[in-house]
Amino acid sequence: MPLPRDAPPARYLDDMKVGLRFAGDPRVVQEQEIIAFARQFDPQPFHIDAALASQTLFGGLIASGWHTAAMTMRLLLEAFPIGDGTIGLGGEAAWPNPVRANDAIHIEGEVSAVKPSRSHDDRGIVTVRTETKNQNGDVVQTLTANLLVFRRKSKSA
Amino acid sequence: MPLPRDAPPARYLDDMKVGLRFAGDPRVVQEQEIIAFARQFDPQPFHIDAALASQTLFGGLIASGWHTAAMTMRLLLEAFPIGDGTIGLGGEAAWPNPVRANDAIHIEGEVSAVKPSRSHDDRGIVTVRTETKNQNGDVVQTLTANLLVFRRKSKSA
Repeated sequence: MPLPRDAPPARYLDDMKVGLRFAGDPRVVQEQEIIAFARQFDPQPFHIDAALASQTLFGGLIASGWHTAAMTMRLLLEAFPIGDGTIGLGGEAAWPNPVRANDAIHIEGEVSAVKPSRSHDDRGIVTVRTETKNQNGDVVQTLTANLLVFRRKSKSA
Repeated sequence: MPLPRDAPPARYLDDMKVGLRFAGDPRVVQEQEIIAFARQFDPQPFHIDAALASQTLFGGLIASGWHTAAMTMRLLLEAFPIGDGTIGLGGEAAWPNPVRANDAIHIEGEVSAVKPSRSHDDRGIVTVRTETKNQNGDVVQTLTANLLVFRRKSKSA
């Protein structure tokens, strides 16, 4: 599945500033996606079986948190592409509310830190905070991620 | 894909102690898995196209960090099952080295904190640190995760 052609232009370290904000389009999460992901990576009753899930504390089928994280990555690539790649070094995530089948999720994000490398002129670490929200505005994931970001190559290079 | 039948017994809050350690069996990561995951969630050249990947700073195809996280979840369920479910509230991850095709990855973990809930007698938050390592002992992911863990239900309940 290629990314949409009308994606915004890719940003480089030169373009990054604390407070830079972005938001993306919603994605509807299908029950079959939730089950397929979880059967592979997180095969617990509340992720793979709607009937069993209804008897758990969640009261119904919910997506694995790692599925929410993976979908958020896709939404991040679409909403905030980075030149030479979106390369995550690590980060901190939380899942304050679950994602359920037919939820429409979207991301809202902001650059919270920009640190040029001391040892390499061509790169830096950019910290990006995203909230992934459902159609009711409930936050289903917060993520603070450190990304390796390169400078734009000069045209004469 | 059900979990293996010879999985260790599920642990409850009653069984959790700081310093409790566990380790799991290796899982070999196939190139097609890396590509399939990334085409869906992280379709960047270094994750989906071996030829293009060889021209990037990674020098070849690598797994999406979220794929490594998802595989680690599966390995965690197998090595350290938790009664009533392994429910992640959030955590902190880093990917100090990439996962490549045909790597055999396994996890090693430890309980680093156990905090019974003040408001609910039947549960607590358990912090689990895992390292995911490849066949050379390189750490490909560190994860510190906060899990919601329930007490064992008493037999008279």
